[in-house]
Amino acid sequence: MKHINLKNIKAFVFDVDGVLTDGGIFADLNGELYRVYNAKDGFALRMAFMNGFKLGIITGGRSQTIVKRMLTCGLKEENIYLNSRDKLADFMDFCKKNNVKPEEVMFFGDDAPDVPVFKVCGCGICPADACRDAVEAADIMSEYNGGHSFVREEVEKVMRKQGRWILDIEEYKKHYTF
Amino acid sequence: MKHINLKNIKAFVFDVDGVLTDGGIFADLNGELYRVYNAKDGFALRMAFMNGFKLGIITGGRSQTIVKRMLTCGLKEENIYLNSRDKLADFMDFCKKNNVKPEEVMFFGDDAPDVPVFKVCGCGICPADACRDAVEAADIMSEYNGGHSFVREEVEKVMRKQGRWILDIEEYKKHYTF
Amino acid sequence: MKHINLKNIKAFVFDVDGVLTDGGIFADLNGELYRVYNAKDGFALRMAFMNGFKLGIITGGRSQTIVKRMLTCGLKEENIYLNSRDKLADFMDFCKKNNVKPEEVMFFGDDAPDVPVFKVCGCGICPADACRDAVEAADIMSEYNGGHSFVREEVEKVMRKQGRWILDIEEYKKHYTF
Amino acid sequence: MKHINLKNIKAFVFDVDGVLTDGGIFADLNGELYRVYNAKDGFALRMAFMNGFKLGIITGGRSQTIVKRMLTCGLKEENIYLNSRDKLADFMDFCKKNNVKPEEVMFFGDDAPDVPVFKVCGCGICPADACRDAVEAADIMSEYNGGHSFVREEVEKVMRKQGRWILDIEEYKKHYTF
Repeated sequence: MKHINLKNIKAFVFDVDGVLTDGGIFADLNGELYRVYNAKDGFALRMAFMNGFKLGIITGGRSQTIVKRMLTCGLKEENIYLNSRDKLADFMDFCKKNNVKPEEVMFFGDDAPDVPVFKVCGCGICPADACRDAVEAADIMSEYNGGHSFVREEVEKVMRKQGRWILDIEEYKKHYTF
Repeated sequence: MKHINLKNIKAFVFDVDGVLTDGGIFADLNGELYRVYNAKDGFALRMAFMNGFKLGIITGGRSQTIVKRMLTCGLKEENIYLNSRDKLADFMDFCKKNNVKPEEVMFFGDDAPDVPVFKVCGCGICPADACRDAVEAADIMSEYNGGHSFVREEVEKVMRKQGRWILDIEEYKKHYTF
Repeated sequence: MKHINLKNIKAFVFDVDGVLTDGGIFADLNGELYRVYNAKDGFALRMAFMNGFKLGIITGGRSQTIVKRMLTCGLKEENIYLNSRDKLADFMDFCKKNNVKPEEVMFFGDDAPDVPVFKVCGCGICPADACRDAVEAADIMSEYNGGHSFVREEVEKVMRKQGRWILDIEEYKKHYTF
Repeated sequence: MKHINLKNIKAFVFDVDGVLTDGGIFADLNGELYRVYNAKDGFALRMAFMNGFKLGIITGGRSQTIVKRMLTCGLKEENIYLNSRDKLADFMDFCKKNNVKPEEVMFFGDDAPDVPVFKVCGCGICPADACRDAVEAADIMSEYNGGHSFVREEVEKVMRKQGRWILDIEEYKKHYTF
């Protein structure tokens, strides 16, 4: 059985659909897909970034709209993996690139393709409305649904546990790209 | 009374509004209509496609946005019936074209125009928030609402019952059009 | 006290925001506003149109997106009142134009500007999530919320009571503008 | 402890995300962000404007879509603070510009950046789904969620308490920019 210590978490990595959104996908006439993100999740990502956590995105989605949104939340472009079919490989690449061990990463997923990452990360967490495969493989199931406070509440919880949920207005002012 | 055996199901056919969506329709200035699909439903369609099920769409809607989205979920364009006014005729055409018997098809509908198909298909299923005519004619009513896990949960259930809910990452990697 | 007889209803007139929608308004960079309608409501409007009811829209909204959507639901352009500030005047104009008496019209509203119409129409109905002024002035409060089955369920109920909830596929096929 | 008297309130100032919306943010390919507002909130803002209240917006958001929407709700452009990083400074600027004392202003917020304003305003109120920092610092927590009647119900409540929830149709007709 996995030993989980949220005080050791140094990075947060997220699937997108059903995790940072409620799973909704808006399709236009060109086949482009759009998502609705949540402002509260966005603020938690910025807080994590400003307080020194590494952040990553690993999604099967292909839209540049994901990149555009995530860049304003403190993500670095090199840590945003689009069109991922083998999430474990991308996760290991993220760890290497960011110099963190898999067991120092908290991974947020909700569906079958996320399962291999749940097995190796420090803490695998799924939303209350996750799919069966994800629920069975995750270490923790949140009481919140994807897109509805799941990411915000769980990131804030870890940061508070580490005493790092700190809003420094002077630091915040520097990030006008947020 | 109809004899239902989910182990005999070889094809899944879906209405769109209220089934693959929550019924919401976004209208623009040109009269074009847009829908919000769900990523979890999309994954179930891809799983069904990869594991050998036939897939079809029969909708009264006319927007090419439906085609664009469904092509990325494993549907073939010839199996997407837009602007359907006589769903039974389109359903029979689907069966003939795909060499399946009506009783081997599970049909997902939620409103009055779906009723004639419910009567001939192998299993007619409606979401928990279906209209009265559909509720009365369907063989099964799901516990889930349209656009909120209805398609995902019910497709996954049939596939698991047949031992065919299998995610093969190598197979998955081949489908970069997903 | 008003005497209400749903068997006498010959016309349905609707406010838009909070009635045919959940009140949500999507704003773009040009100040244009967009709404999300519901497919089930749309089907009820088409059923009412095909079975001989008069239909009207009286809204404070100004967007042509409302007209575009309503035309596909069986509404005539002359019966769509946009930018209404005095709903009672527009309601009386609708009655005259369509040769119906106010007491033969069922009016669907949810907010303060709808109150004067509630007082003169045959039956004033508001959704479960209507504002206080509307709740106090309406004759009936639906158990459904605006945009979430309110219009569909209440129109269907009146039509069934009159024995006019009838889907004639041959008639339906004629309306490819739906 | 703060003494709160809702009869003294002369101005309403609002955060946007999670307050006038449910927190949802729609991202397009250009990185532009869009929000869904609520018609009932909009009506309350117009009622407040028509009955003499000062109105302000202080948001970390940068989109001109916010300005476009708020102008149609009775806000003056000079009272819309976008891209706010130091909300307290912007709040004090609003008070000075509009000749109101901080204690005469009711402030609507839902997250950590709103906390400094909660401390100085006449009444700080947060929605039922506010973040922990906001819940702890607000004077009142509404029973309603952001984007779902929070602003409408609380503004209407204050206006009724002051006997100023009055819809004058002749006055309303003058505002065709609404």
